[in-house]
Amino acid sequence: MSKSLSFRIEATDGKARCGVITTPRGEIRTPAFMPVGTAGTVKAMLPENVRATGADIILGNTYHLMLRPGAERIARLGGLHRFMNWDGPILTDSGGFQVMSLAELRKLSEEGVRFRSHVDGTIHMLTPERSMEIQRLLGSDIVMCFDECPALPADEAEVARAMHLSMRWAARSKAAFGERPGHALFGIQQGGLSHELRAESAEKLREIGFDGYAIGGLAVGEGQAAMFATLDFAPDMLPADRPRYLMGVGKPDDIVGAVRRGVDMFDCVLPTRSGRTGQAFTRRGVVNLKNARHRDDPRPLDEECACPACRGYSRAYLHHVFRAGEMISGMLLSWHNLQYYQDLMAGLREAISRGRLAEFEAAFHAARAEGDIEPL
Amino acid sequence: MSKSLSFRIEATDGKARCGVITTPRGEIRTPAFMPVGTAGTVKAMLPENVRATGADIILGNTYHLMLRPGAERIARLGGLHRFMNWDGPILTDSGGFQVMSLAELRKLSEEGVRFRSHVDGTIHMLTPERSMEIQRLLGSDIVMCFDECPALPADEAEVARAMHLSMRWAARSKAAFGERPGHALFGIQQGGLSHELRAESAEKLREIGFDGYAIGGLAVGEGQAAMFATLDFAPDMLPADRPRYLMGVGKPDDIVGAVRRGVDMFDCVLPTRSGRTGQAFTRRGVVNLKNARHRDDPRPLDEECACPACRGYSRAYLHHVFRAGEMISGMLLSWHNLQYYQDLMAGLREAISRGRLAEFEAAFHAARAEGDIEPL
Repeated sequence: MSKSLSFRIEATDGKARCGVITTPRGEIRTPAFMPVGTAGTVKAMLPENVRATGADIILGNTYHLMLRPGAERIARLGGLHRFMNWDGPILTDSGGFQVMSLAELRKLSEEGVRFRSHVDGTIHMLTPERSMEIQRLLGSDIVMCFDECPALPADEAEVARAMHLSMRWAARSKAAFGERPGHALFGIQQGGLSHELRAESAEKLREIGFDGYAIGGLAVGEGQAAMFATLDFAPDMLPADRPRYLMGVGKPDDIVGAVRRGVDMFDCVLPTRSGRTGQAFTRRGVVNLKNARHRDDPRPLDEECACPACRGYSRAYLHHVFRAGEMISGMLLSWHNLQYYQDLMAGLREAISRGRLAEFEAAFHAARAEGDIEPL
Repeated sequence: MSKSLSFRIEATDGKARCGVITTPRGEIRTPAFMPVGTAGTVKAMLPENVRATGADIILGNTYHLMLRPGAERIARLGGLHRFMNWDGPILTDSGGFQVMSLAELRKLSEEGVRFRSHVDGTIHMLTPERSMEIQRLLGSDIVMCFDECPALPADEAEVARAMHLSMRWAARSKAAFGERPGHALFGIQQGGLSHELRAESAEKLREIGFDGYAIGGLAVGEGQAAMFATLDFAPDMLPADRPRYLMGVGKPDDIVGAVRRGVDMFDCVLPTRSGRTGQAFTRRGVVNLKNARHRDDPRPLDEECACPACRGYSRAYLHHVFRAGEMISGMLLSWHNLQYYQDLMAGLREAISRGRLAEFEAAFHAARAEGDIEPL
């Protein structure tokens, strides 16, 4: 690992690990949840408020930022940290996932992906080399390899082809990344649900050598049971002394299950996206604020939560502003959901430190099984 | 004036006054600008951030709140202050203006206005008595009389008819308001641009007796010159020892001109509405952030402003998030614009206190005449 990024495991409980990633821009407590700041903003949040929820690191999307406002422009403006006013660590994805899910007229080749921008119709080419260049221009602290992530279900030949291409691209990514003190490069394991393909992918990545290792190609349609079955073996194939990052995951119970299986880092748009559609995550499960049952309810969304939405407002208010289409609805619920996720991670870290992860997990599932508080 | 609301004039400069309105919920420094919290939220702002800009009081809209979520519901939930998490003073309008501009199938009679809700099509009746009841249910600190405000231009007979009706409604409002320690009732002068009608209206209002006096029926299409011509005499007709409130005004230069003519209170949706459409108020005039000239500009919107938008971000960022449709655009620009308005009011108060309003006004206009900073 480059001297500028270190990972210290402070406690384990079974396969679960609790630790700290140290970067020049600050420490990242693991297991960590990274809020997604797609286009230079964690939607509906000011960065100081993202920090206040307990987030140590956020994620930026190469695909969105390269198209608007453009990586060269952000570089001229002093990099992504200054641009979006976030001075902590930033991880950027490679653009590989979004280019396959969002771009139009995409054409995949050994070289990379040629595509049409969903923003303005212009033609672009994304390759491992260009992805490394863009992430360098953005000033990303943790850079991800350019890979191809097939949606599941897919036949094994297709998953194998994509994994092999991704491994060739991983080698090109490493070569293009070069030596960048203070910045880390993570490889991405592919191979779908196959033990054999995952093992082969992990072996290739270890040969190339990375600062951290992501598990890609999950949470893409396979369902939680299949994902957990894969996570029963996939993390173990990756170096134990490096951070393991499960990309694009997930729901709270996905995260709890993945932490138990040895994953250290997560990202997902769910807390912010749900916040904008009136859905709140609570210890007792998902609460839909648009439901009329909240119309006259003077109680807070979650009595145990210290976020502004729960400290300052009733469910009736949250219901009202969602129904009225007011921006404060998305602002408050995004904040609450991010707070919920960070509280969950803090709970997981503490449980692992105390060797009480099983009890934590049981209590987590029991509270959710209770369901929301009774209507008044 | 009721014991619970007092107005102390601390300095004058010509007709301009600087003072403090004291209410049980806190002091209001005048000249005061009241951000508009139409439907239980100052759009795109958290209330603690509205407070941080320097706002002492906000405005709520009776028309919107009676339709959704409903005045009786807000009362059951503990009143508007608790509902929207704002513990400072709240002034509510009477619903009279919005019912004529927003409602469908409205029918005006001596009794009041019958109309169809623009939210859900239900039929409602708004009268002076019902308006007082709604404002009581909301828990408003400063209650406005129910009036009819005709759009201008209108012929004098129509303006006179509306004024006379409004004066009969003012008497009914006063009777219905009754005695409510801790709460104030403001009368509203009508009469369009006519000196004679304004004088007659003021005389009627003084006979009835109110805690404060609003100037209604301006900023409704007559233009700034006609408004100022009316403000050259209208405020003088109202009791000098009571606050004078110019409803729905306005642009920064409208406010400066009205303060010079003896007005103490203002409200307007402009700072928040403009903030959501990419327009920013600065000392050097209006800046349109959607303009491509800002795309690569690393400079802050306004170097002299202490708001988060100006402290933390470049014009290039503000341009980007507006173009990308990100919520943070409306959040940052609403905050900036509200900060600009509150800084303007603070500047006016200080200038009046020092007897330097003319110099302030000259500098205000000179900076605007300069225009925005040169493109890079």
